[in-house]
Amino acid sequence: MAAWKNLDTLQAFDTLLGKKEGVDIAAKLSGENGAERVQKYSVKMAEGLQYNYAAKEVDEEILKILQDLADEAELTEKFKELYNGAVINTGENRLVLHHLTRGQLGDDVVAQGVNKRTFYTTQQKNIAEFAKKVHAGEIANAKGEKFTTVVQIGIGGSDLGPRAMYLALENWAKKNNAFRMEAKFISNVDPDDAAAVLASVDVEHALFILVSKSGTTLETLTNESFVKEALQKKGLDPAKHMIAVTSETSPLAKSSDYLAAFFMDDYIGGRFSSCSAVGGAVLSLAFGPEVFAAFLAGAAEEDKLAKNKSVLENPAMLDALIGVYERNVLGYTATAVLPYSQALSRFPAHLQQADMESNGKSVNRFGEPVSYVTGPLIFGEPGTNGQHSFYQLLHQGTDIIPIQFIGFVEGQCGVDVNIQGSTSQQKLSANVVAQIMAFACGKKDENNNKNFAGHRPSSIIYGKSLTPETLGALLSHFENKIMFQGFLWNLNSFDQEGVQLGKVLAKRVLAHETDGALKAYSDLFAI
Amino acid sequence: MAAWKNLDTLQAFDTLLGKKEGVDIAAKLSGENGAERVQKYSVKMAEGLQYNYAAKEVDEEILKILQDLADEAELTEKFKELYNGAVINTGENRLVLHHLTRGQLGDDVVAQGVNKRTFYTTQQKNIAEFAKKVHAGEIANAKGEKFTTVVQIGIGGSDLGPRAMYLALENWAKKNNAFRMEAKFISNVDPDDAAAVLASVDVEHALFILVSKSGTTLETLTNESFVKEALQKKGLDPAKHMIAVTSETSPLAKSSDYLAAFFMDDYIGGRFSSCSAVGGAVLSLAFGPEVFAAFLAGAAEEDKLAKNKSVLENPAMLDALIGVYERNVLGYTATAVLPYSQALSRFPAHLQQADMESNGKSVNRFGEPVSYVTGPLIFGEPGTNGQHSFYQLLHQGTDIIPIQFIGFVEGQCGVDVNIQGSTSQQKLSANVVAQIMAFACGKKDENNNKNFAGHRPSSIIYGKSLTPETLGALLSHFENKIMFQGFLWNLNSFDQEGVQLGKVLAKRVLAHETDGALKAYSDLFAI
Repeated sequence: MAAWKNLDTLQAFDTLLGKKEGVDIAAKLSGENGAERVQKYSVKMAEGLQYNYAAKEVDEEILKILQDLADEAELTEKFKELYNGAVINTGENRLVLHHLTRGQLGDDVVAQGVNKRTFYTTQQKNIAEFAKKVHAGEIANAKGEKFTTVVQIGIGGSDLGPRAMYLALENWAKKNNAFRMEAKFISNVDPDDAAAVLASVDVEHALFILVSKSGTTLETLTNESFVKEALQKKGLDPAKHMIAVTSETSPLAKSSDYLAAFFMDDYIGGRFSSCSAVGGAVLSLAFGPEVFAAFLAGAAEEDKLAKNKSVLENPAMLDALIGVYERNVLGYTATAVLPYSQALSRFPAHLQQADMESNGKSVNRFGEPVSYVTGPLIFGEPGTNGQHSFYQLLHQGTDIIPIQFIGFVEGQCGVDVNIQGSTSQQKLSANVVAQIMAFACGKKDENNNKNFAGHRPSSIIYGKSLTPETLGALLSHFENKIMFQGFLWNLNSFDQEGVQLGKVLAKRVLAHETDGALKAYSDLFAI
Repeated sequence: MAAWKNLDTLQAFDTLLGKKEGVDIAAKLSGENGAERVQKYSVKMAEGLQYNYAAKEVDEEILKILQDLADEAELTEKFKELYNGAVINTGENRLVLHHLTRGQLGDDVVAQGVNKRTFYTTQQKNIAEFAKKVHAGEIANAKGEKFTTVVQIGIGGSDLGPRAMYLALENWAKKNNAFRMEAKFISNVDPDDAAAVLASVDVEHALFILVSKSGTTLETLTNESFVKEALQKKGLDPAKHMIAVTSETSPLAKSSDYLAAFFMDDYIGGRFSSCSAVGGAVLSLAFGPEVFAAFLAGAAEEDKLAKNKSVLENPAMLDALIGVYERNVLGYTATAVLPYSQALSRFPAHLQQADMESNGKSVNRFGEPVSYVTGPLIFGEPGTNGQHSFYQLLHQGTDIIPIQFIGFVEGQCGVDVNIQGSTSQQKLSANVVAQIMAFACGKKDENNNKNFAGHRPSSIIYGKSLTPETLGALLSHFENKIMFQGFLWNLNSFDQEGVQLGKVLAKRVLAHETDGALKAYSDLFAI
């Protein structure tokens, strides 16, 4: 059994605290050995991806301390316990099994008499069969016409991940003859969200997926009613247009209100559910089950690397350790995720949830307050767009914000134009490369206003192109990075008690059980 | 003439530094006088909006210091100089005239012999006439058929603001018979962006707006070529499908490549250009010129409030001052913008640019390094979505992140559903109200993991509904807040030298004029 200890009780962390000044990346990358550093400071990921950290403020000595920290914190041992079925989510007394949706890394995991790997693959098979019947028109609307659109109703983890993955693969699928149905998403309890999506959809040919693990999520059930009313107004039977993704114990599981139900369980947190039925149903319907399987395969390959004890062979763990060094020693408070790929437009929003909901905590896994900072603020937009927006602050602002770049050699659509001797894709790549160097090395100018101080660290994950496999690997990388950081901070990364109080108070407002300031605020909105 | 001084040379700031502990909002709002505070700590905005700061860590004493700070920093005097045509953008030797696109607050401003108010209103009139002809089918495609879609090609300020405003009013327009044409946006140099937008558009009936002040923006010109090639491939004449928004001196201004050209000038920064021809063309085409005029009227009304010397009658200035107190005294590094309105889904991204590009700087307006922190990190997503995502960190994370809520009593679409005794809109409002109180007051729990520390400050801007007028007022509020904060930090908020170095290096990469690390990075992308 691994020992769960606070970060500030580890000897290697104490050593790391001696490195309050990071390595001078401006010097390292400007110098003669800059090229060598770029080539050397790179770790292989799955599916041909690379994690390059040449522009991070580390050197051999710091890497050695980070390795010691990984060893002392028993990071891979803790991961092993996790995938072998230990109760890692202590607060909720639950296993943490999202890795098992895409592969088996260790022992058989049996819970309540069920082999969980079999459970997840059975769901995948059921979804695949259902999707194929929908695509073949064997499952169709009341008139026997094919469904053309799939609409996911879900919020948080039932929305952000699946939506980001759908957008990431939409154009790839169109280019590769894998596009089966358009997908749309309804999430917000704001009635304008559902109204606008419904107005944009041919409801008669739409299949809705209701996603709620508990079957009790306020927003989702409200939006379900919204959709049902819209269907009924058009003379359509909601039960013929709707499937459910939920847990077997939820009220939705065996309801005749749905064409079919597919299952997840309590061992998969919402923000880690893209590879479960939550992502599986919508992605299999949109792109076919083969594409979803390829996505899972990419994630499974990347997961295997997370078992490696050496930080130089475990990109997620290295990324996590460098992040903790930046957060707890160098004192940076945020991380920007900047994909140079329009297809990844919502990937930062997904990571914002996955990371901030997992590690935005102040007490350790034993419920004791910690005396160090934990999860950073995560944000981002695609490049080059961001370059014309908030990059000004990243380059010349008073705070340093480390950056996580993502880029690909090729685009997805295969359409391009050559202007002034280069393609758009080459311009895109040239920009991300230029940004890494601009941030790291800066540029002296006598006019202070045009001066770039440099010393702004970044890493880049890059590969040939964004495909189902590389997308899976990318997702796995960040999920595992978050897990390792949670281990380092000694947090339970798998509960989310911080979302509860708001729910309780909102119910009180709706029940008019308020007084004082809460009533006064409610009055402003005439509730 | 106002005196431009660094924040840390002001006596009132020194006094403010004595208030290192903000007011105990948990006590203030939980207590008997909580309701009174909610009612009292509110400032009238234009168009029926209110800025409520009851959950900010201020009291009468701190407000008094903030008023002194406003007076000593001569904030309204500086604003007066700005709208009367002083060279406020010193780095680029330019006037700052975006307010003049929506009203005249002071003297006539004449530059190069031209009355600038007349110049901007003339552009509005020209755009209105053009839009009406398009809507009437008098300006049509080669076959004489009406244009049905407008596609804006622009990046940064030519994209984020107009896009956010379009999305904010799209459903309102559909509901209010003001929807004329669908709008789409191409921004990223990633060829997949243009390819995907073009694939989603009926190109034969599409009108493209090329937006570039200088006429030299790499991304925009590249995307123009991309679009032209697509038009030509369909046998269409690009000159019959394209208009330009640019400055009169740009190469695009008098080109026969465009059906028409509308003008902005150097006195309007990209991120402040939503009210100029940059936003005017696309919004007038999408919703009709009357809607754009109503949007300008809302902004103009709000601008008038920014002239008031009293912080209690100048919501933008008060917001700015509280923000500086939070940033420079209380030490908070970021601000979350959380609109409880799906229509404002991209409003935070627009503010992220407007704020971070304006005030993400380390030198004052005289080019001298400042020794205090300046612009914070700005990010956000609509509620209630964010509640199921990053709010965990906002509630229980180790850093405090102040929040700027936005909410409306009514939705835009007028479609709703009553579930469990309340409508979706009521649930939405109940949630934002509940969040304010949850963040401010928290909740004690013996289980530390379920404990909410509270003391997390927020403000809320609220009103009846999101209309062209209230959207204009909202935009003006934040633009002026940013301006006042720039005055306080003694920055030039209107240039953006921080975006230059990346451009220079990217050109070098594309020209293969690289060595060392830059060449090594370029090799990774096979450039």
